[in-house]
Amino acid sequence: MTQQNARKIEVTELVLRDAHQSLLATRMATEDMIPACEDIDKAGYWSVECWGGATFDSCIRFLNEDPWERLRTFRKLLPNSRLQMLLRGQNLLGYRHYEDTVVDRFVEKAAANGMDVFRVFDALNDVRNVRRAIGAVKRSGKHAQGTICYTISPLHTVQGYVELAEKLVDMGCDSLCLKDMAALLKPQPAYDIVSAIKESLGAAVRVHVHVHATTGVTLVSLMKAIEAGADAVDTAISSLSLGPGHNPTESLVEMLEDTGYTTGLDMERLLRIKEHFAKVRPRYAEFLSNITGVETEIFQSQIPGGMISNMESQLKQQGAADRIKEVLAEVPRVRSDAGYPPLVTPSSQIVGTQAVFNVLMGRYKVLTGEFADLMLGYYGETIGPRNPEVITLAGAHAKKPSITRRPADLLTPEWDQLRSGALALEGCNGSDEDVLTHAMFPQVAPRFFKTRAQGPKNAGRDPQAAAPAPATGTQAAGQSPVRSPITYEVKLNGRTHNVTVTPA
Amino acid sequence: MTQQNARKIEVTELVLRDAHQSLLATRMATEDMIPACEDIDKAGYWSVECWGGATFDSCIRFLNEDPWERLRTFRKLLPNSRLQMLLRGQNLLGYRHYEDTVVDRFVEKAAANGMDVFRVFDALNDVRNVRRAIGAVKRSGKHAQGTICYTISPLHTVQGYVELAEKLVDMGCDSLCLKDMAALLKPQPAYDIVSAIKESLGAAVRVHVHVHATTGVTLVSLMKAIEAGADAVDTAISSLSLGPGHNPTESLVEMLEDTGYTTGLDMERLLRIKEHFAKVRPRYAEFLSNITGVETEIFQSQIPGGMISNMESQLKQQGAADRIKEVLAEVPRVRSDAGYPPLVTPSSQIVGTQAVFNVLMGRYKVLTGEFADLMLGYYGETIGPRNPEVITLAGAHAKKPSITRRPADLLTPEWDQLRSGALALEGCNGSDEDVLTHAMFPQVAPRFFKTRAQGPKNAGRDPQAAAPAPATGTQAAGQSPVRSPITYEVKLNGRTHNVTVTPA
Repeated sequence: MTQQNARKIEVTELVLRDAHQSLLATRMATEDMIPACEDIDKAGYWSVECWGGATFDSCIRFLNEDPWERLRTFRKLLPNSRLQMLLRGQNLLGYRHYEDTVVDRFVEKAAANGMDVFRVFDALNDVRNVRRAIGAVKRSGKHAQGTICYTISPLHTVQGYVELAEKLVDMGCDSLCLKDMAALLKPQPAYDIVSAIKESLGAAVRVHVHVHATTGVTLVSLMKAIEAGADAVDTAISSLSLGPGHNPTESLVEMLEDTGYTTGLDMERLLRIKEHFAKVRPRYAEFLSNITGVETEIFQSQIPGGMISNMESQLKQQGAADRIKEVLAEVPRVRSDAGYPPLVTPSSQIVGTQAVFNVLMGRYKVLTGEFADLMLGYYGETIGPRNPEVITLAGAHAKKPSITRRPADLLTPEWDQLRSGALALEGCNGSDEDVLTHAMFPQVAPRFFKTRAQGPKNAGRDPQAAAPAPATGTQAAGQSPVRSPITYEVKLNGRTHNVTVTPA
Repeated sequence: MTQQNARKIEVTELVLRDAHQSLLATRMATEDMIPACEDIDKAGYWSVECWGGATFDSCIRFLNEDPWERLRTFRKLLPNSRLQMLLRGQNLLGYRHYEDTVVDRFVEKAAANGMDVFRVFDALNDVRNVRRAIGAVKRSGKHAQGTICYTISPLHTVQGYVELAEKLVDMGCDSLCLKDMAALLKPQPAYDIVSAIKESLGAAVRVHVHVHATTGVTLVSLMKAIEAGADAVDTAISSLSLGPGHNPTESLVEMLEDTGYTTGLDMERLLRIKEHFAKVRPRYAEFLSNITGVETEIFQSQIPGGMISNMESQLKQQGAADRIKEVLAEVPRVRSDAGYPPLVTPSSQIVGTQAVFNVLMGRYKVLTGEFADLMLGYYGETIGPRNPEVITLAGAHAKKPSITRRPADLLTPEWDQLRSGALALEGCNGSDEDVLTHAMFPQVAPRFFKTRAQGPKNAGRDPQAAAPAPATGTQAAGQSPVRSPITYEVKLNGRTHNVTVTPA
């Protein structure tokens, strides 16, 4: 098969968002991305992922950068590219549900500042939590990509994923994304799910596949997804790839040679992009993920590698490091009681921390607030029924009823209040963008508004200038509701336990 | 497809040989392997690769270990396993051709000490250089695996590889190995070559596939080779995998789930083996390869990553670092003049160094002795004709004729002489094993015999005890004829140039 007759496989480049989020704790400064933009713009990508919750957060928390300004910079420097973002449905880029008109406003503003493709997901795959955002994207005339969060459980089936895909297409999505944040997607299910979607919904429904590399098998999964008809895949330039990150873009290109598929990417430009980020990477050595190589243990424990080391450190602080096996055995039980949520941020932290509590203090003797909310439906619906006994305990703990409505239906219009809250802050420029920044990160935005005028603070440093500190294993700018180590003091039968929860 | 009906894919574990050779400069001590042996023995591997030229060399050069004793240790600790070695055909484990009865004696002794499977290769794919060794293996009643060294050139075709396979099978090989030392084997050619061999020679001919991971595509190539009918593949336990090493064993196992293929390996044991080598690895941090991530540039330049950095350092020492692009462009020309040898050790060093000489001093103004030998046929036949003008220059340089005979045919019986040479050395124990050790490493064996009684010297160190020195990028115990940096003083038109050649 000549390359001329080969089917084009489109590629989304992740280096400006998920790659450095997964490998460098989201710390990369805009100025370290700018020199690569021309090559990225002209390499032939379908889209360039460049914005999301963690990068937004990191901009204002660590880098003193205005994330909206970053977006406008990309728009200017990537004139030929579709800019793509990851949007947490009704949560936008924050950690709570927002009222519908706030969702509308956010999408409008992101579109107006240059965003083209909105990948919209909900951690529980509850379509009610993505519908409003998808509608808003359509009204803005932009590309709405509906997301299927992939996970493994006794209740998750190929047919179930196809039904979810149907709902998303019915909602008006321009394309679908099969999103595997934990590197759990093996070759055969990748093939089965993509073929089933294509068979059921028609070959014209665009399917994008997003996988991480942690388990070492997912480049094969991309190959199988492509054979099954996938239209596009996500990769990251090799110098910021692998480990908890993604498969290398250049390897994808080479893998497809003579197979009847081709990316059409410009390898010369790819190698220049690689070189650039190979130089940038050591500047962020102190933030580098301490996961190297592959971690297939994820398949056994069902929980992402980062969360395991996190639970280990929680246990260690309790002098109970020897109980990790009990905790790993407890996780599937807690997950089952919670109706089998996908174990991704934030549900992985919520379930994992509850499993630690169960082992240390007795099963469900102490509940975290987040776990109670999950049990009571405040994150949305889960695929399976939740354990009624644990729901009762959660109700008693949280002193509120369980709900079956869409969580955002409980909210009343809040834009005016958000607006006046933001405008009262020193340094707020009064724009809708600033109001949204404050709405999503109310604890961080006030300080950022104050210091914004000082300009960006690059968190990288010359590797020659100072020996890098050892990697900490915490990725503070991740998507966790737990943003920095929080120590709970828990009293149980008169004895006090200190339990520290750290973002994975 | 249930796992019961799945076709069994056999696995050769590389951790005891090629994995630490590729990642830790071959430095791992036997005592650091011993604790993993029980799990390795019972995990269900088809074979355990544990011996070869570089590990033999490293034992006597760096570790003060008797490599024959290492073999006997493996035999004792891996009673249920096929032990496998890599044998360089007529070169045995050394760097010159040996006379046939020495080849016979070596194979006999390796078999007597416990070796089961002999993977026999010749760097030029000249079958005349493997015939004697394969015959000796058969006479010892052991498993002879004939090897096809994979490379890419205008002359290398699927049909050519099939013809080579036929010759090896006709020679009596029990199985074939498609060996990709440079990670050049992409998925489609992997599929095409394995299917063509199976179609042409019959499904019963066992095909093993050996790939490195450097380019990031070869786990997909293994999948395609398996789909094409491959019987066995080589992998390394994940904690000593990837980079210039191999694909992770655990990822292979997981990759195949529900595909209709299964390894049957015991994952619990694999994870214990992983844990063990994850602890061992940091002890050898100072030897760790400085190649991380993937290097797809190999596909463009046709030369392995290690050789590129090597040529860069040669150029740098000449104050000519800016000429690397000229050298990279020169390599394919030199390779073409040399009849398209596979670019693997030692031919990659021979061709690469000559390319550097050509750029610095004018094309073929100065020849290395090794390059002259290659041109004159002293390594064997190449797939393509060699450039007659360069052959003439080589003849003038080396003051010897070109040959078309099998190089070993020039040799006269040498065992008695080798024996008396070894017996004259202090500390030689008079065994045939010692004679062979000295025959293969005449520069290193004398010192080793003297110090052997002091016992093993572990080259690893406690990572807590001292900060590891930065990785050097040189793998001194590799299979290179250039064993440590050699500086040539080259006079050309009255001007003296210092050219230093370093092992890749």
